[in-house]
Amino acid sequence: MSQNYFQDSWPEELSYCFGCGRNNKHGLHIKSYWKGEEALCNWMPKDHLKAGEDILCGGIIATIIDCHCLNTAIAQAYKQENRKIGTEPFIPFATGTIKIELLRPVSLQKSIILKAKVKEIKKNKIYVSCDLFSNNILCAKGEISAIRVENDFWKKKNSK
Amino acid sequence: MSQNYFQDSWPEELSYCFGCGRNNKHGLHIKSYWKGEEALCNWMPKDHLKAGEDILCGGIIATIIDCHCLNTAIAQAYKQENRKIGTEPFIPFATGTIKIELLRPVSLQKSIILKAKVKEIKKNKIYVSCDLFSNNILCAKGEISAIRVENDFWKKKNSK
Repeated sequence: MSQNYFQDSWPEELSYCFGCGRNNKHGLHIKSYWKGEEALCNWMPKDHLKAGEDILCGGIIATIIDCHCLNTAIAQAYKQENRKIGTEPFIPFATGTIKIELLRPVSLQKSIILKAKVKEIKKNKIYVSCDLFSNNILCAKGEISAIRVENDFWKKKNSK
Repeated sequence: MSQNYFQDSWPEELSYCFGCGRNNKHGLHIKSYWKGEEALCNWMPKDHLKAGEDILCGGIIATIIDCHCLNTAIAQAYKQENRKIGTEPFIPFATGTIKIELLRPVSLQKSIILKAKVKEIKKNKIYVSCDLFSNNILCAKGEISAIRVENDFWKKKNSK
């Protein structure tokens, strides 16, 4: 059975995110899915995403944790509404805050597993935490707040 | 007079970082420099780094803030030792924690200015905060802790 990845269900116009968009040719293409109460993501670094010789860039760690957690928040919102993930109207969230702890270097040579959990649900916010494992070793921890935004948030042109 | 960018002074083997390495062909190439007590960075987003239609990816915001702050911490360490920036032996720091607040969407069409300040200096840690302005509007805030690491940290292969 093929996995139901959250990112494969979002509308086409939301599929170009650098971190998780399935249609971004230069993106990281992370894929998130439920396994019980956790959302998992398996991802393999690429050499150009390095910080040093065999160390993944910390900003890329922040990027995959943020995208994985935000996707998890949106999937959680669908779950709460008892709706099939990705069905219209899309339930838009945006990241409010990101906190990352880099515990030890992450190799470019090993695949990564992200394990996210919904920590708290408020009226318009969902808090999601995430552990990053490389070679089964906990190497980073993160948490985001995901904020429910207006329906056209991700579609509109920036008016500034 | 040409600007003295921190990243142009680091050793060749540390010039491949995705966020700030001058020799990473696929990187973001941020450039940081002192202006008084602040470290500045002017940077232009690229279209493939989007989250949505005209919104810069939050993970990329975390990446440029992290790299700019870490470079600022290293530059500060050189300053404290009254040494010309980049001279051998290199003074290595690594990011310990990253905190980002995304206040409003950042356009892909406008250049960005990062303004970083050293907030606190401890024996082996330097705390750096950073404001991100797009079109002169404060759009994100960040803070990192930079940890003094052993001399071969950025050079060694990951042994895991």
